Amino acid sequence: MNDPIVADARPPAQRVERLRIDGARLWGSLMELARIGATPKGGVCRLALTELDGRGRDLVVRWAREAGLTVRVDPIGNIFARRPGRRDELPAVMAGSHIDTQPTGGKFDGNYGVLAALEVVRTLDDAAITTEAPLEIAVWTNEEGSRFVPVMMGSGVFAGAFTLDHALAQRDAQGISVAQALHSIGYAGEAHAPALPPRAYFEAHIEQGPVLEAHGRVIGAVTGALGQRWYDLVVQGSEAHAGPTPMASRHDALLAASEIVLAVHRIALEHAPHARGTVGHVDVFPNSRNVIPGRVRLSVDLRAADDATLVQLDSALRRTVDVIAASRRVSVEVQPVVYFAPQPFAPELVDAVRAGATALGHDAMDVVSGAGHDAVYLARVAPTAMIFVPCAGGISHNEVEAAEPAHLEAGCNVLLHAMLRCAGVAA
Amino acid sequence: MNDPIVADARPPAQRVERLRIDGARLWGSLMELARIGATPKGGVCRLALTELDGRGRDLVVRWAREAGLTVRVDPIGNIFARRPGRRDELPAVMAGSHIDTQPTGGKFDGNYGVLAALEVVRTLDDAAITTEAPLEIAVWTNEEGSRFVPVMMGSGVFAGAFTLDHALAQRDAQGISVAQALHSIGYAGEAHAPALPPRAYFEAHIEQGPVLEAHGRVIGAVTGALGQRWYDLVVQGSEAHAGPTPMASRHDALLAASEIVLAVHRIALEHAPHARGTVGHVDVFPNSRNVIPGRVRLSVDLRAADDATLVQLDSALRRTVDVIAASRRVSVEVQPVVYFAPQPFAPELVDAVRAGATALGHDAMDVVSGAGHDAVYLARVAPTAMIFVPCAGGISHNEVEAAEPAHLEAGCNVLLHAMLRCAGVAA
Repeated sequence: MNDPIVADARPPAQRVERLRIDGARLWGSLMELARIGATPKGGVCRLALTELDGRGRDLVVRWAREAGLTVRVDPIGNIFARRPGRRDELPAVMAGSHIDTQPTGGKFDGNYGVLAALEVVRTLDDAAITTEAPLEIAVWTNEEGSRFVPVMMGSGVFAGAFTLDHALAQRDAQGISVAQALHSIGYAGEAHAPALPPRAYFEAHIEQGPVLEAHGRVIGAVTGALGQRWYDLVVQGSEAHAGPTPMASRHDALLAASEIVLAVHRIALEHAPHARGTVGHVDVFPNSRNVIPGRVRLSVDLRAADDATLVQLDSALRRTVDVIAASRRVSVEVQPVVYFAPQPFAPELVDAVRAGATALGHDAMDVVSGAGHDAVYLARVAPTAMIFVPCAGGISHNEVEAAEPAHLEAGCNVLLHAMLRCAGVAA
Repeated sequence: MNDPIVADARPPAQRVERLRIDGARLWGSLMELARIGATPKGGVCRLALTELDGRGRDLVVRWAREAGLTVRVDPIGNIFARRPGRRDELPAVMAGSHIDTQPTGGKFDGNYGVLAALEVVRTLDDAAITTEAPLEIAVWTNEEGSRFVPVMMGSGVFAGAFTLDHALAQRDAQGISVAQALHSIGYAGEAHAPALPPRAYFEAHIEQGPVLEAHGRVIGAVTGALGQRWYDLVVQGSEAHAGPTPMASRHDALLAASEIVLAVHRIALEHAPHARGTVGHVDVFPNSRNVIPGRVRLSVDLRAADDATLVQLDSALRRTVDVIAASRRVSVEVQPVVYFAPQPFAPELVDAVRAGATALGHDAMDVVSGAGHDAVYLARVAPTAMIFVPCAGGISHNEVEAAEPAHLEAGCNVLLHAMLRCAGVAA
């Protein structure tokens, strides 16, 4: 396959240019899927490989079959729904995401990417359009990682980030393995993953951040995903009574930890605009009101768009921690625990997203993905891009997660046209 | 009783001046009592009103009776062991402390004060010395508050800080009331507390802080106890994803909380030497590595030797919190939860401690008690003073709590002579 990915050589017919998805149908499907695991506060709790996840999968599979797609399930439970192309031997143009949610998740995270891909297929069916390359809708298993780690499990296996056996052997808090859970909901598939990696992979997703909304933009052309370095830090001071211990005699682990929290924030600010630095987890010991904390465990999450910046963040963190430890007379252990490389997306596909947006009258904004997505793993094996649409207040992983129907529709139209550019329309 | 408390008018006979307690006997009693509830790491776990506390009390009562003392138990379980005076109608000179411990407590906290008082009596018996005023050893119920709150329960009832009924009604985590627990170990006494408040109350105690050790001093003359103001703070920001949320868009509750931790420390330093400021307890929500904390609960513990300083600390805290809340774009609720007034001790008795130390060749160091003690409640109803001796590294409420036999002996000798100065020696 030596063709360029984006088949711009063949200008689409006017009929294709004017093609639009059905926003109401997309919204209706989103709302119907959101009923499975609906929470009282308007969110969704559909943890990976639970009975509810099984029911959600069944619904999506039924819709896919109703759209004439061929459904296969691979051994980690990824679902592939295929629409043949005129040249069906070509690698597919794939789009998808996940339908598992956080425990107090929303209706759109993941679900939007899957149902937008389905809506693209339905739209092509309505218009009786055949693509040159086949299309595939992918539903990746356990993106959220709330019940089983690692996160992005299905796409990780697909991309070879870890092995199938490793993933199948993971257990939830009750000791149930991924393999057992897949069997019990009937999604321990036997199909091989597509023999060839996809020709292109697109993922439409709510932004889960506030940038598009803050700029009044509807379409984000995602240029890549931030690299991530996660650390566990242990600050060791000396536990002592809050009353009898003079201020100057203290080895207060929490004072040092507090300076580290502020330093992590400052270091990220110094590497604007894309660097991020967050302390999200803090455990204080003994955590008693009148005892000077002797030990604090905290997490540090550093992110940047390129590895050079990640390295700078890493050295700044270590340097600063050393200074704080010395001045506060405590010791600090810095343990790296996770590294995700920065993942640029395929420039041709990002261009296809921009072009699709422009054709639809939207001025796409270049953004980076700060969070992990299945697309980040897919980008290791196939040209990949993402399309972001705004979500209210940037809030996600939350029952109040909300998105405008018009924005979801616009993103889906961009997906449609980006996919058509890659797959080509049969004459 | 219009006599001065300290009966310096009658110069003690040389025999009395040379009187010394038996350090080995004191140490032996401490070690024997520490066997009841001994922990593998060399500490003691003898929570208030447990069966082990009952056995500890039985041992102390047996020793008291063997020393010829009359033992009474009041309705909150305080034990009073009385040695008659020549003028037995006088209010007693009392000394004591508590024998309940923290869950991972040491051998000396509390126990020293009780057994030092017992050793004083044994020494007087050996020397066949009668005092003018009677002596009382007090063993106060539930000073630690580990099983039942409020802390300093027995001395609190004795001093009228709260009612007997309130104390008896308190329940532990298993729902057992103080009244039930007292009955089950046989220490629900019926004796009335002494009709008159004591003529003087002394409490010998390990310092539980590092000051004496740092200054190479053996005897601390405690001039009073710090006042305390405790607060619960809730910082409310906005929970958001660590990845997609730009640094400048955040409402990070933990950043604000970290600034508050540092501010509490700084405010206390600015009111040196006696002010203390500690954040000991922090809970972060949702406490997830890759989520910007939306809410943090933290405690603040402010202490000072006088109320004017406590008021300054309080205003400085509130002022600083307001500035931090505004600059970090979060809200902070400040809820006062506890107020203990600063408690100066009786100057005459503190002088008696200093004089006792000097007579024994020790240069007493004036110190303040940063922690609460039974003596702090006693000081509300009787002239009171405390004698501190060093403990290793200032460590207490810990199984590794340690004190030098020579220091314990010295403190007990100071107690002996301070008590004799107050009680007077019968000619």
